[in-house]
Amino acid sequence: MTTTAPWALDALEALMSEPARRMGSGAWAAQPGGNPIRLTGGIPDPNTLPVEQLLEATRVVLAREAAPALEYGGNAGYEGLRELIASRVCAEEGCSMTAENISIVSGSAHGLHNVFETFVNPGDVVVLDSPAWGGAIRTLRPLGAEFASMPWDEDGPIIETLVETLEQVVASGRRPKLIYTIPTFQNPLGVTQTLERRLALLDVAARYRMLIVEDDPYGELRFSGSPVPSLFNLSGGEGVIKCGTFSKVIATGLRVGWLQGQKEYIDATLRMRFDNGTSPFTSRIIAAFIESDGLEPHVERMREVYRAKCDAMLSTLSETCAGKVEWTTPEGGFFVWMTLPESIQLPALMRAANEEGVAVIPGPGFYADGGGQHNVRLCFSNVEEQEIVEAIRRLARAVDRAGS
Amino acid sequence: MTTTAPWALDALEALMSEPARRMGSGAWAAQPGGNPIRLTGGIPDPNTLPVEQLLEATRVVLAREAAPALEYGGNAGYEGLRELIASRVCAEEGCSMTAENISIVSGSAHGLHNVFETFVNPGDVVVLDSPAWGGAIRTLRPLGAEFASMPWDEDGPIIETLVETLEQVVASGRRPKLIYTIPTFQNPLGVTQTLERRLALLDVAARYRMLIVEDDPYGELRFSGSPVPSLFNLSGGEGVIKCGTFSKVIATGLRVGWLQGQKEYIDATLRMRFDNGTSPFTSRIIAAFIESDGLEPHVERMREVYRAKCDAMLSTLSETCAGKVEWTTPEGGFFVWMTLPESIQLPALMRAANEEGVAVIPGPGFYADGGGQHNVRLCFSNVEEQEIVEAIRRLARAVDRAGS
Repeated sequence: MTTTAPWALDALEALMSEPARRMGSGAWAAQPGGNPIRLTGGIPDPNTLPVEQLLEATRVVLAREAAPALEYGGNAGYEGLRELIASRVCAEEGCSMTAENISIVSGSAHGLHNVFETFVNPGDVVVLDSPAWGGAIRTLRPLGAEFASMPWDEDGPIIETLVETLEQVVASGRRPKLIYTIPTFQNPLGVTQTLERRLALLDVAARYRMLIVEDDPYGELRFSGSPVPSLFNLSGGEGVIKCGTFSKVIATGLRVGWLQGQKEYIDATLRMRFDNGTSPFTSRIIAAFIESDGLEPHVERMREVYRAKCDAMLSTLSETCAGKVEWTTPEGGFFVWMTLPESIQLPALMRAANEEGVAVIPGPGFYADGGGQHNVRLCFSNVEEQEIVEAIRRLARAVDRAGS
Repeated sequence: MTTTAPWALDALEALMSEPARRMGSGAWAAQPGGNPIRLTGGIPDPNTLPVEQLLEATRVVLAREAAPALEYGGNAGYEGLRELIASRVCAEEGCSMTAENISIVSGSAHGLHNVFETFVNPGDVVVLDSPAWGGAIRTLRPLGAEFASMPWDEDGPIIETLVETLEQVVASGRRPKLIYTIPTFQNPLGVTQTLERRLALLDVAARYRMLIVEDDPYGELRFSGSPVPSLFNLSGGEGVIKCGTFSKVIATGLRVGWLQGQKEYIDATLRMRFDNGTSPFTSRIIAAFIESDGLEPHVERMREVYRAKCDAMLSTLSETCAGKVEWTTPEGGFFVWMTLPESIQLPALMRAANEEGVAVIPGPGFYADGGGQHNVRLCFSNVEEQEIVEAIRRLARAVDRAGS
């Protein structure tokens, strides 16, 4: 031991970088007390986890290719999986892509961080869905991004409002650089941008030379309606980086997702990879699972599971909450967004919900600069159907109590 | 498809962040032609990969705890592994630590990036071992760090030179913030800081209120001599974040390492985690491997393997190169550092080595601001003993040719 007097705790604040200071020490909100039914985390149904298939895939990988699975795999990730993703996406979307257009990331949260680091300077204006996924806001904040809001109606972003906002940004001498959006089964709204809105959004982005970051964690989990082409596909990849993930269709715990974009844009993001690449072990397990033709039937099964869960949530909302609050009607994904009348205050609802034994996410966490004071997000993905029915009944009682 | 004219490739440079521009597009140097014996990558011996044990650990994890292994695991990583690391490190070093002092990272390259992001502002001066691991230089560059050099002799950093350098930094109005060092079996030098040097280094760091980042990928792989306490342990954790990894003792492809430090310092690094945490799947596989008591005998076996490989390299160097070049004598790890006489130019040696069929890493990649013009790094870890002997004979011929 050295005999130096302790100094490190006093010095911590002075040692921290500006980005770390911008984050503050605030952790995620504490879990509510008791043992409520949680309509909170956007987590896949635990009963659908493909445990046996993943064990079999692990066996295949370690028997067939143990050394490359257990050694460094390069910055862009395992090429075999990049090829499988390219051909799988192209089969769905009819686009033209190769492994060069793909990098493997450690889940899409990591992928978004990688993209934002590569493109956002302090003071750059980033346009966010309003409301937006809170994790993206959290990732952008330490980079010193300034935020502009892109409000949605049930068809997607309101383009006229977006253009007005961008004009104001430009008039103020700032640089609108990037649009972050989840066009399909948006988190937290649950709704989907129409084709018309997508085309209009792409035109606006091209006019202002803004990069669109298209986050698509839920797109494969459509259980009603018709697919809408991705922004990536509609633009021919021009000025769009799409972020995909196996978290929602296989398992969040593997931490494997991908970025797809023009090769030059993917190469730019690779400049900012300092992690020696995403695990070849987990990447090859996923590749083996796909090669076994196990993924498509698995995804099909999950669509049925989430259709039933969503139906349970929506029908119970209709039975218990009609005329009292409003909610969205998703065609896929995990989320329903509830809007309270002005007469109901969010803190009162959250308190009553906690007392009734149901946990939901309050709206303000989905806004960078205020908003969401009359909203909550409901997630139906990882609670049993019967529990969903009970949870919504409890929530309805909480609405009645908070409004009385 | 939209009908917008292509614009994105023209806009790429303008869209990129300052850190991405600082990186440039330079990739790693191309591999030499032919099929040389490669004394290059710091990769574990592929024949020692614990393939069967990892498959068994996967089976245990998926049978016992499939859901938590396949779901999000939290920012700091799987608590069970953090506890195992704390108790394992404390058993070796006699320190006092709990899971709160540990975060799980996706390999130590990721861990270092996490630490540097948390503590380094543009213009901050970071002191590096001279020579230093190139990956650390690459990770610090986009953050806008300025570099100062800490030259080593065979006993570690030369403290008088370090103090002179720091005085100059302070006199120039800059902030010396961080010392990055690999004290044990240094990469690329192969040698180890003595206890005396470690204590002196800690005193200097405390005097200047500098954080020491102690990178320790090789510490467990000692095959001769006596262990020296870590900087972390000598300081009681005061002002030191240590970065550990399972890459060299289990497998690089799992991408699991850890940070250990005072709780407040670990908490600061967690502010800058935007990846939803390292894979609970791979973390729990490693935990199951450790719990099976498989790791310690595995590490012991690897020490024997690397002792034999290092002996082969050193004895062949003595036979073939004595009096022509100098080299270090490691007591563990993967590397030997060779110093050429002034009369031998590095490009000539690299060309001759390529022609003789042996690949080594040229010295300049281990310096942030020049240096290494008469050095090469030799790695003995992932080549068979007989191949090492042959590789060094080829290198000796290359030395003869380059010097003639």
